[in-house]
Amino acid sequence: MRTAILLYEGFTALDAIGPYAVLSNVPEMTIDFVGKDLELKNPDKGFTSFSVAHTIFTAPPPDILVIPGGAGTSIAAQDKDILQWVQDVHKSSQWTTSVCSGALILGAIGILQGLTATTHWALQTELEAYGATYVSERFVQHGNIITAAGVSAGIDMALHLAREIAGQEMAEVIQLMMEYDPQPPFASGSPRSASPATISLARQIIMQESEQEQKEQARL
Amino acid sequence: MRTAILLYEGFTALDAIGPYAVLSNVPEMTIDFVGKDLELKNPDKGFTSFSVAHTIFTAPPPDILVIPGGAGTSIAAQDKDILQWVQDVHKSSQWTTSVCSGALILGAIGILQGLTATTHWALQTELEAYGATYVSERFVQHGNIITAAGVSAGIDMALHLAREIAGQEMAEVIQLMMEYDPQPPFASGSPRSASPATISLARQIIMQESEQEQKEQARL
Repeated sequence: MRTAILLYEGFTALDAIGPYAVLSNVPEMTIDFVGKDLELKNPDKGFTSFSVAHTIFTAPPPDILVIPGGAGTSIAAQDKDILQWVQDVHKSSQWTTSVCSGALILGAIGILQGLTATTHWALQTELEAYGATYVSERFVQHGNIITAAGVSAGIDMALHLAREIAGQEMAEVIQLMMEYDPQPPFASGSPRSASPATISLARQIIMQESEQEQKEQARL
Repeated sequence: MRTAILLYEGFTALDAIGPYAVLSNVPEMTIDFVGKDLELKNPDKGFTSFSVAHTIFTAPPPDILVIPGGAGTSIAAQDKDILQWVQDVHKSSQWTTSVCSGALILGAIGILQGLTATTHWALQTELEAYGATYVSERFVQHGNIITAAGVSAGIDMALHLAREIAGQEMAEVIQLMMEYDPQPPFASGSPRSASPATISLARQIIMQESEQEQKEQARL
């Protein structure tokens, strides 16, 4: 079985590596990182560059597609080549999934129209512009489409997917190997639990990062 | 402030990217990925190669050191150049931290002697060979040394560190931006909650991966 994880300029590393950590432990799974180019010049902060094994023009068709989010998603969601590839892959994939703002790319190819779906909590409006109804769940499944909430939610979604593919026993083994026994130090992981001041500051930073990303990409 | 994340052949991606996701959002933080060579030829499964910005011979001295774990740690923990660098960095670092089997590298430079510490649940014996006492905690702090448990525990540890560096409000904002509101689908994240069969199968796979890694590295 093959999983393709789509990377693009301005993706968020944990969105990709959370599901990767789970799925790379599923028996007989091959993981391909796939990008529009073989080299991302503007990946997440601190990486100088990021190489992928395949471009969207040469990648083997995957059984599972994972689309991470990031400050660059809104730009990727307007890239015709990327959208065409995602559309083609979805025709034959067994599972088509997104993490965080990656849902906007699924929205852009029209497959969330009329469905409930999730994304990062700050992007409800952007998601609903594609005809989906945002729900505040860790992940939402409709047939072979699964959308997950912000960043770290990809881990929970991928464990669910591991169970679908390899059965509950193997999924539990993978959770144990990752020692995924989370103990977040604060009760601020969701807008339901965070204070209004925390929510407001988080929104500001997210908006700044998205603007910064648009400038970076204009410069490239 | 600078964070160096040490990468080596056979590191586990999530061990590095979990803390990275948190620390890269701390205001005015620079993150450097650092390796013995600029190119890792045998990184985690599915990466064809992994480039870092600095080698241990040229990296700027960091304020925070993060040492991830992985199937390659026991080999890295015998590499004189890596050990020398970690020892030098620890002399001036503000925080020296490990995730998962990364604790074995801290053990190898002798700084866990006589302390309680944590690591992946399957590596208690290996950790205690360095004179530490294993405790089953998400992370353990003694002064400026923090050890975290297996793989995903690096996220919880880094949020704690974010509070120490940037205060609780910013740490809560970072948790919210990551939507770190974990909802693991199974109660199998720790040997306390997993079944004996799950624990036994996880141990087998971990042992196989470590043997596989030793063969890979002998081949390089």
